[in-house]
Amino acid sequence: MSTSSPLKIVVVGSVAAGTSAAAKARRNTETARITVYERDHDISYSGCGLPYFVGGEVETIDELTPRNAAWFKARYDVDVRTGHEVTAVDAAARTVTVRDLATEETFEDTYDELILATGVRSVVPPLPGVDLPGVFTVRNPSDARAIREWIEERQVRRAVVVGAGYIGLEMTEQLTERGIEVTVIEALEHAMPRMDADMSARVDAELRKHDVDLRLGTRVGAIEGDDGGVTGVRVGSADDGDTVPTDLVIVSVGVRPNLELAQQAGVTIGPTGAIAVDPQGRTDVAHVWAVGDVAESFNLITDEPTWVPLGSTANKMGRITGDAITGGTLEHRGILGTSIVRVFDLAVAQTGLTEDQARAAGYDVEVLHNIKPDRPEYLGGESLLIKAVADRATGRLLGAQAIGASGADKRIDVLATAITYGADVADLFHLDLAYSPTYATTKDPVHYTGMALDNAIRGKARLITPAELDRHRADGEKVQVVDVRSAKDRAKGFVEDSVHIPLAELRARAGELDPAALTVTYCNKGVTGNAGQNVLRNLGFEQVYNLSGGNKNYQAWTSAH
Amino acid sequence: MSTSSPLKIVVVGSVAAGTSAAAKARRNTETARITVYERDHDISYSGCGLPYFVGGEVETIDELTPRNAAWFKARYDVDVRTGHEVTAVDAAARTVTVRDLATEETFEDTYDELILATGVRSVVPPLPGVDLPGVFTVRNPSDARAIREWIEERQVRRAVVVGAGYIGLEMTEQLTERGIEVTVIEALEHAMPRMDADMSARVDAELRKHDVDLRLGTRVGAIEGDDGGVTGVRVGSADDGDTVPTDLVIVSVGVRPNLELAQQAGVTIGPTGAIAVDPQGRTDVAHVWAVGDVAESFNLITDEPTWVPLGSTANKMGRITGDAITGGTLEHRGILGTSIVRVFDLAVAQTGLTEDQARAAGYDVEVLHNIKPDRPEYLGGESLLIKAVADRATGRLLGAQAIGASGADKRIDVLATAITYGADVADLFHLDLAYSPTYATTKDPVHYTGMALDNAIRGKARLITPAELDRHRADGEKVQVVDVRSAKDRAKGFVEDSVHIPLAELRARAGELDPAALTVTYCNKGVTGNAGQNVLRNLGFEQVYNLSGGNKNYQAWTSAH
Repeated sequence: MSTSSPLKIVVVGSVAAGTSAAAKARRNTETARITVYERDHDISYSGCGLPYFVGGEVETIDELTPRNAAWFKARYDVDVRTGHEVTAVDAAARTVTVRDLATEETFEDTYDELILATGVRSVVPPLPGVDLPGVFTVRNPSDARAIREWIEERQVRRAVVVGAGYIGLEMTEQLTERGIEVTVIEALEHAMPRMDADMSARVDAELRKHDVDLRLGTRVGAIEGDDGGVTGVRVGSADDGDTVPTDLVIVSVGVRPNLELAQQAGVTIGPTGAIAVDPQGRTDVAHVWAVGDVAESFNLITDEPTWVPLGSTANKMGRITGDAITGGTLEHRGILGTSIVRVFDLAVAQTGLTEDQARAAGYDVEVLHNIKPDRPEYLGGESLLIKAVADRATGRLLGAQAIGASGADKRIDVLATAITYGADVADLFHLDLAYSPTYATTKDPVHYTGMALDNAIRGKARLITPAELDRHRADGEKVQVVDVRSAKDRAKGFVEDSVHIPLAELRARAGELDPAALTVTYCNKGVTGNAGQNVLRNLGFEQVYNLSGGNKNYQAWTSAH
Repeated sequence: MSTSSPLKIVVVGSVAAGTSAAAKARRNTETARITVYERDHDISYSGCGLPYFVGGEVETIDELTPRNAAWFKARYDVDVRTGHEVTAVDAAARTVTVRDLATEETFEDTYDELILATGVRSVVPPLPGVDLPGVFTVRNPSDARAIREWIEERQVRRAVVVGAGYIGLEMTEQLTERGIEVTVIEALEHAMPRMDADMSARVDAELRKHDVDLRLGTRVGAIEGDDGGVTGVRVGSADDGDTVPTDLVIVSVGVRPNLELAQQAGVTIGPTGAIAVDPQGRTDVAHVWAVGDVAESFNLITDEPTWVPLGSTANKMGRITGDAITGGTLEHRGILGTSIVRVFDLAVAQTGLTEDQARAAGYDVEVLHNIKPDRPEYLGGESLLIKAVADRATGRLLGAQAIGASGADKRIDVLATAITYGADVADLFHLDLAYSPTYATTKDPVHYTGMALDNAIRGKARLITPAELDRHRADGEKVQVVDVRSAKDRAKGFVEDSVHIPLAELRARAGELDPAALTVTYCNKGVTGNAGQNVLRNLGFEQVYNLSGGNKNYQAWTSAH
């Protein structure tokens, strides 16, 4: 970089991270020359909003693409060249080869610093028929426009969504709300497979409640149809599969980073399959940076490389690198993989490590399922389930998953903030959160979560998950399971092989139980079970566990296994 | 306390803190004998829910009083004696004198540990007519029942609410939603006077938007009426006041701790006027503890004694003392005064120090008004205003106030959590919060708040509040105010004596400005103003400030002063 001429920054890609980097660089300096090359027509669009345009909640695509090249030029003096594809990089010469897709002309441009923000592409499995008209992925505004046109022109009545991750679920909801009958085909055992199975099973139930034909553990064999369009999706193997008739197929089985330029530049790809970068976005090739979905991040808890392509993280990475290139000191501090998706009437959210991830990372985990209304029921509060995971050795909160009609986003954001500061579960009870019955309960679900986990780890109110209970039983251990609910509640369903002693009788009837045996108390959701647990423990029972999430969680777990 | 007999705990008061203390003590030990004396009939009720019973959002009072003495006995083996008033304490003898209000019999009871949870009473100013039928305070279920009966029997059409704090505002909303015309009389200059004036002015506007007759800076001279009931409220002085005709008066001018027993026991009252306690709830008299609204707390930031009577804090204090009395180690960690109230279509929330409080505490404060949609506008997101205050010397976030149609509770809880961990404003940008356009923007309002404050303190994007701008002008300083908006936006209103140079022309026309003068850029809400600020600063302007919250905040401030 010459000292006499202004810094020249070239950015490849303009969705979230690329434009964030360019804008931040300009905020820091008026003298840099900044050029952004974008293969596509649209820039700086909200990819996460696309399903809502397809569904019609967003009326025009312009709402998702509020900014264009002229806006960027006027505001930031940044040259955004849409319809320009960067086809090659020469990192030694610091040049890129650019093709103007309109004129097919090719030219070279030089850079002092190059930022790769090339994003991801949708994975398209090599299925027979995957190229038929009426088969779509959902990556950019063109896709969304094409899907909505297809739906409206063909008067689509049936759709198949392949893959039940975020995009698949959002599309399923939006298509259903348009009155389209949707079949979801997911190769894994549950929708939303990033969550623990006992949580994602609740997402399955929500889909089915809304008449979605959910086919789990199922693969697509082929897509059927002709030049006139898709007509069906064959599931299972070529031999024994049946065909789901359909007018539309959405393929949402995941995304992969666009690595071509990075590989050409010789940068190292990390263990996650995305570009390895330092906390400011530097690759291991001089003057080449990578930001957004194409680049790797790292987990704030484990410090391990991780790759969770999300617009929120992409924006952060762009801003950090735009700052670093112009002399700033911002550094990425890692992510928690915090995410949320609306699935019909439920918010489905998570942050930090799932139970599975925590166990895989070697933690001795304590697990709680907290089921509480998000606001008092007298003001319409509805049940919110928080599954939280903590490290028994240190008490550190490791992660949380939440599902509920309202307030899940708030609790996950509070817990994400607490985890960021290394929160001990004992801290949560002390948080001074905003209480009014219009917004929360006197003790917030976050407080209860912390109290129960702290009692489990440090107090004597240990928790047992349905999975752990079943493991003990499968191992042939004597387990004394005590249902402390009322007769009325028990009549609605109970944990098999449990004895029934209502809490109000427990002090008097404790003699009927074996104080030396492994004892599990339970109620509907966990609170009365914990009261029973305390009674027995204080009466000298040696090993008393409370069933996490009570009978409600046990039944959900059982039905999912 | 004898070692041979079980610990005997006496609790006076059973609303929130008293029952929390009793329950926690029992969870820790089966052997203690625990008695709770309650003067009233109802126990463990949701005081904060009372206005919603009056308004009819809550149908029956039973929903607010779900627990009774029998429930406590069955669940916790705690004897709750309602209709029993503790009339005296002998701390040396460790006895209390109790009167059974039904039989008028008086007896003595002994204790090993005494917990005062005597709560607060409503302040009733000594006004002429304050005892007339139809004049109410709102403390307990009996009050709420009486008010609702009065409204229904009298077919109340007009009400006067005296005092515009939490209860006053909740009652105003609920009465209005019943179709009653409400006049609010507040002695201070704004509704919600706990907030900074530039925020509470927005509460004033919301009340007026809903046709509430809001009379600020106004005192009640007398209440008029006869044995048949209240007929009017005379405002102002006896001489020049006018009379507001009314069928109902709600007096909500504050609460005061019930200190009689504490004073009799000889415990020290703290500087806030509530009982001084240590972090476990001990008073300075042996074996006498105090919890809940009657006791003092301390501010987590300043460490100073503070008194903010709220159910959430009362519950915490009760649990902590219940634990401490039975050998636990829980300690109160202080509060942030976090609170929230719904005022018609807005949530009004705050945590930590206000600007006024921070200045009074001696901080050199940086102040930001961040105005952003809580979700993308394409999915119906509405404007959310966050006023945040930070310490310039250290970058520490000191407090936040938020007003908006949705999402204010979430952001205040996230910021309260961050403040609890001593967050630097630079931390906020890095928080990995849950993003989906159905719940948040890609960069969350919390991120923007942190970025702008960090830029103001550590970067070069300094902020100026409307109040500060006016102070500079009043001091006769030359201030060059630059409106960087479009002509269309400017036509709708602008900061007086500002020059108009749209951002897109600013680079070219910067020569029209004096680079040595104090310069203030602004736009509608702050973002474009910041872009203009960056342009000028990078072009060598020495002192460029961005107007916090833009023209929108300036106009709100101007109309409030």
